[in-house]
Amino acid sequence: MTISLDPHYAFDKTDVLSVNAIRACAADTVFKSNSGHPGAPMGMAPAAHVLFTAIMKANPKNSSWWNRDRFVLSNGHACALYYIMLHLMSYKVSLDDVKNFRQLESNTPGHPEVGITDGIEVTTGPLGQGFANGVGLAIAQTHLAATFNKPNYPLFDNYTFVFTGDGCLQEGVASEAASLAGHLRLGNLIVIWDDNKITIDGNTQNSFTEDIEMRFTAYGWEVLYIEDGNLDLDGIYFTIQRAKQNKDQPTLIAMSTIIGYGSSLQGQVVVHGAPLKAADIGGMKSRFGFDPSENFYIPEATRELYARATERGIAANEKWNQLWADYKAHHPIDSAELERRMEKRLPDGWESALPVYCPGDPAAQGRVYSQTALTKIAEILPEFVGGSADLTGANLSRWIDAVDYQAPETNLGQRTGRYIRYGVREHAMVAICNGLDAYGGIIPYNATFLNFVSYAAGAVRLSALSHHRVLNVATHDSIGLGEDGPTHQPVETAAWLRALPNMKLWRPADGNEVSAAYIESIKDTRHPSTLCLSRQDLVNLEGSTIERALRGGYTLQEADNADITFVSTGSEVQIVVAAARILADQGVTCRIASLPCWEVFERNDEEYKLSVLPSGAPIISVEAYSTFGWGVYSHEHIGLPGFGMSGPAAQVYEKFGLTPEAIALRASKILDIYKSDGEKVRSPLLSATRRILQKERFA
Amino acid sequence: MTISLDPHYAFDKTDVLSVNAIRACAADTVFKSNSGHPGAPMGMAPAAHVLFTAIMKANPKNSSWWNRDRFVLSNGHACALYYIMLHLMSYKVSLDDVKNFRQLESNTPGHPEVGITDGIEVTTGPLGQGFANGVGLAIAQTHLAATFNKPNYPLFDNYTFVFTGDGCLQEGVASEAASLAGHLRLGNLIVIWDDNKITIDGNTQNSFTEDIEMRFTAYGWEVLYIEDGNLDLDGIYFTIQRAKQNKDQPTLIAMSTIIGYGSSLQGQVVVHGAPLKAADIGGMKSRFGFDPSENFYIPEATRELYARATERGIAANEKWNQLWADYKAHHPIDSAELERRMEKRLPDGWESALPVYCPGDPAAQGRVYSQTALTKIAEILPEFVGGSADLTGANLSRWIDAVDYQAPETNLGQRTGRYIRYGVREHAMVAICNGLDAYGGIIPYNATFLNFVSYAAGAVRLSALSHHRVLNVATHDSIGLGEDGPTHQPVETAAWLRALPNMKLWRPADGNEVSAAYIESIKDTRHPSTLCLSRQDLVNLEGSTIERALRGGYTLQEADNADITFVSTGSEVQIVVAAARILADQGVTCRIASLPCWEVFERNDEEYKLSVLPSGAPIISVEAYSTFGWGVYSHEHIGLPGFGMSGPAAQVYEKFGLTPEAIALRASKILDIYKSDGEKVRSPLLSATRRILQKERFA
Repeated sequence: MTISLDPHYAFDKTDVLSVNAIRACAADTVFKSNSGHPGAPMGMAPAAHVLFTAIMKANPKNSSWWNRDRFVLSNGHACALYYIMLHLMSYKVSLDDVKNFRQLESNTPGHPEVGITDGIEVTTGPLGQGFANGVGLAIAQTHLAATFNKPNYPLFDNYTFVFTGDGCLQEGVASEAASLAGHLRLGNLIVIWDDNKITIDGNTQNSFTEDIEMRFTAYGWEVLYIEDGNLDLDGIYFTIQRAKQNKDQPTLIAMSTIIGYGSSLQGQVVVHGAPLKAADIGGMKSRFGFDPSENFYIPEATRELYARATERGIAANEKWNQLWADYKAHHPIDSAELERRMEKRLPDGWESALPVYCPGDPAAQGRVYSQTALTKIAEILPEFVGGSADLTGANLSRWIDAVDYQAPETNLGQRTGRYIRYGVREHAMVAICNGLDAYGGIIPYNATFLNFVSYAAGAVRLSALSHHRVLNVATHDSIGLGEDGPTHQPVETAAWLRALPNMKLWRPADGNEVSAAYIESIKDTRHPSTLCLSRQDLVNLEGSTIERALRGGYTLQEADNADITFVSTGSEVQIVVAAARILADQGVTCRIASLPCWEVFERNDEEYKLSVLPSGAPIISVEAYSTFGWGVYSHEHIGLPGFGMSGPAAQVYEKFGLTPEAIALRASKILDIYKSDGEKVRSPLLSATRRILQKERFA
Repeated sequence: MTISLDPHYAFDKTDVLSVNAIRACAADTVFKSNSGHPGAPMGMAPAAHVLFTAIMKANPKNSSWWNRDRFVLSNGHACALYYIMLHLMSYKVSLDDVKNFRQLESNTPGHPEVGITDGIEVTTGPLGQGFANGVGLAIAQTHLAATFNKPNYPLFDNYTFVFTGDGCLQEGVASEAASLAGHLRLGNLIVIWDDNKITIDGNTQNSFTEDIEMRFTAYGWEVLYIEDGNLDLDGIYFTIQRAKQNKDQPTLIAMSTIIGYGSSLQGQVVVHGAPLKAADIGGMKSRFGFDPSENFYIPEATRELYARATERGIAANEKWNQLWADYKAHHPIDSAELERRMEKRLPDGWESALPVYCPGDPAAQGRVYSQTALTKIAEILPEFVGGSADLTGANLSRWIDAVDYQAPETNLGQRTGRYIRYGVREHAMVAICNGLDAYGGIIPYNATFLNFVSYAAGAVRLSALSHHRVLNVATHDSIGLGEDGPTHQPVETAAWLRALPNMKLWRPADGNEVSAAYIESIKDTRHPSTLCLSRQDLVNLEGSTIERALRGGYTLQEADNADITFVSTGSEVQIVVAAARILADQGVTCRIASLPCWEVFERNDEEYKLSVLPSGAPIISVEAYSTFGWGVYSHEHIGLPGFGMSGPAAQVYEKFGLTPEAIALRASKILDIYKSDGEKVRSPLLSATRRILQKERFA
């Protein structure tokens, strides 16, 4: 293959000087913070230099340019390098910011966090995540290009570049993502593997002796080599350019480097995760021809070189702006639509497309309401893109006329397709969704059984930390799945997801609540959601409306002078309604609250929340999970004592006392105790801590 | 390679008859339960028949024979096949049990569960887990063989056979495990891949087009083929025998089959996960020459064939018993030691090896106490075997003179080595530990940061469900890890693990509590533990003893007429002690309870528990996590409002109000409110529900 090398990029001594300055600066950064990882930044400085100054098409003055090349530092612990590059390229990262590395409330935290630092695309550090995010970013580019590009209007033609170390490549999440990327023939994805033979435990010989290049070839990737990643800037450049020319396959570039290059201890594991000694840094600077006493030294020639690179990025963005202006003139409808999508605006009144149910309407499974809802959403929101981890027919996660997102050469679908066949790869699926959201213009969803959302826990956590709007459609949400048994029945999953900051766990009780869950999950652009959907039928409840459910919790059945308030979620609400009827026959008056989403319920004012869960009567929760965590809202909790069981769903419910009769009996026993105790009953919402926090908030 | 085929195994028409009977019986099983998966059982019936009747060395009458070949059905949804095989081989699975498939409290649940069904080695169903368990089983065999076999005494020479579908091979956990198995050259591991080109979502072309054979070759496996897994019983037999002869590599056998072989819909996705229609089953039976009206038909010739296979298994066990008797005579010390290990007995007084600390002793990091403890344990318990996911130096998970477990040809270690280099493979690491425990004779542990235990959630859940004694050594257990930042700081992890049934989350507050955590985790053979260990120093506390900590919770500082009871865990206990001193100066009397393990604390009688967390004063919890779930033990909760932050640990603690001063201030505000409310304060342990359950227990 012929490579046309832009003569501009003849690397010279200024580049070498710059690379060495970056190495020294990385060592200084970690030394000053007395914490962090110098080895990978020093080893990957040449690749970063070539990529940022000579290859990447990005505008540091407009880091949200839609068609920028995306860079992902999957080995996020190497972020000293990343921050230095962002500084040199004139992103909003000052040299003082770099010096403030890993300090409280700095914009240069210990691992890269999107939203904290200008120019950072995705949050990385937990190994393997960035790699899989990169697959999501690459999918998004191909999808938006196929959807919006026109002849002569390559609005989206950017690449995604990922740096990875050995650690990421050992992680299952990266393996899953790599397999899918190969299947999807993502020619716009280029991964540069820092092949330095060192992991924290020593030489890769200790645990990682597979033939990585063969593995990626097996996945359908092209594999290229950079034999000397320490010095051969031309080789780095040519190889990446070569990778860009392969439009049909993702590329893994195996780049040999020496970890901690420049240190007297280079190549050894000690340079990985702790600051170098001062004398070592000084010696290195001397060898590089720098003043050993000067820290954070950036040569003027380096400043100039990077300024030119920045200018080229600005110019590229300006050229694209012209293209966009022309596109807008010639394609007003498409451009308006694209703008709407990229700005995360929703069409006026889109929510009205969601189905509204009345108490008389036939009962349906939670997953069926979900399929109805997502079918409507798919019609009205073309940015709604997702799929299932090979459980399409069980999750009911596909609308009937969906087109698969596939490489068109396979005749299995199109790049414009919006249904992704993730395969049995839950962890990569969610990490890819994080990448789709990070790219923009897409509302990503995914689907599996609720129990297997746990397989994706590493990525789910980063959805939450990074404020990605990702919808996890989680069907088969309880022991109600029945025969599949305890290996498939979630018990602890809701507690985990409710304890996870920023995550909204929705557990809708009927059709209206399912509609509300989708509406709120899509409207809220800053938080991920997990929608727990039943396999068994959900009756449409008297008292439920979409509007009420949108508050996250509401009074389903009000009663004056109630003896008991029941609070419940999902498929157990209808059981509680029946239990309340039994109790009513016994002269016990019950209020019922439905609490489909705790995180959203908390956003209401105190008065409203207290109206749902008031003082004066014991509040009893009912949920077919571990009762762990219910103390926030209820005095007494009815749930599972341990794992579930294999058997027909109704029998499993009965086994665990989750029938109307058993609940009524338990509740009346509870009530007897409260009566005999004769104490005032205060809502858990009136805990001293809540009252203090409330007061502090308004002080 | 020459293969010596035992002439006994010339497969004939009885074998074909038997295979077809198994296929029909699998269809009947799923039909009768009206739930389950007929396709894979029908497709894999030939392989199961050959393996169980002609290859596996196992004694159905003694399913805990140490040297039995292990069988793992990684595609656990195919368990109708497994139960039928166990029945035919005369394990304790009757035909009625098979007919009771997926019914409540049957021994034939929806997915295989160890402990529920005689002959089942590990719990499978969650995809990829069984594959990784198989790697653990294979490691265990090589380790015990290297440790206990003697010339002419091959006590341990069994193989591990794993059946897997495409689903397992897409999962990251299986990829991680496969890479490690190749590295470790586990020649005793043979995986038979049901290459039927079908997943739930349809043809594997949709999402799984990688070259699987090349991938496994890259991992260092041998790959063999069975071209016709539907009919070629000889081919199946020869190929597996061929695999057994490769002692240097694990083997993947790619076996082509047709899913649902025999059904009129064979080869189609519809036969995967739902019962076949009655007419289809009838037609199949006719084609097989069976009476279409007869269900669960087992031909007499099949019975006889299987009876002979069972006899051979019994004979093999008896032959081995003789070997064992001779071994015992010639190697009394080794045999006694082995017996002790296999029977999970601990040497008398072993606990006394664990360090005891006094309040005057120097403070140390939680992970340092842990290293001291595990070093002592490693000395006294040779069955203690584990390692880290490439964080050895950070987890301090290795004792100083440990030998690595490695293939000896690599010169990196020995098969007798007890330190496993898991690589950056958290999910496989825990799944492998489940396999090590399932094999027996080993107490497995693993190590990573607490935050990354979540990566292994799928396997952690199965440790708990399957009652595996696995120790998860989880260091860097809070925001106290400081600069690495929120990507590495667990917040929700404790809530998840406390909500997970059977899991013991230990969060020790000082040296004695670390010793207690190890003692209890090792003594309790039926539950997994997660030991949360700090990166920061833990002062040795006045009032802590190993004996007290062994109760899971205890009163660290008693006080008469206390105004407040503090309850806390781990590194926050020492902060609470300091807060209590500040409050004492203000005339506020505090009790302090340390609650290192909730699950163990719950095992105490009510009176004891109430003595730790009594009524009469507000109980305030303090923990540097989400407060989610503390309502079980405390009225008021101090913790984190969301994710952590990157910065020096002390500053991060201060930022979140987790200093003695801030806690004292918050506590006194809480106390003011309780005083002004003037209500009786009842321990959360006296909730109505707990009182009812207590009463029911003794009724």
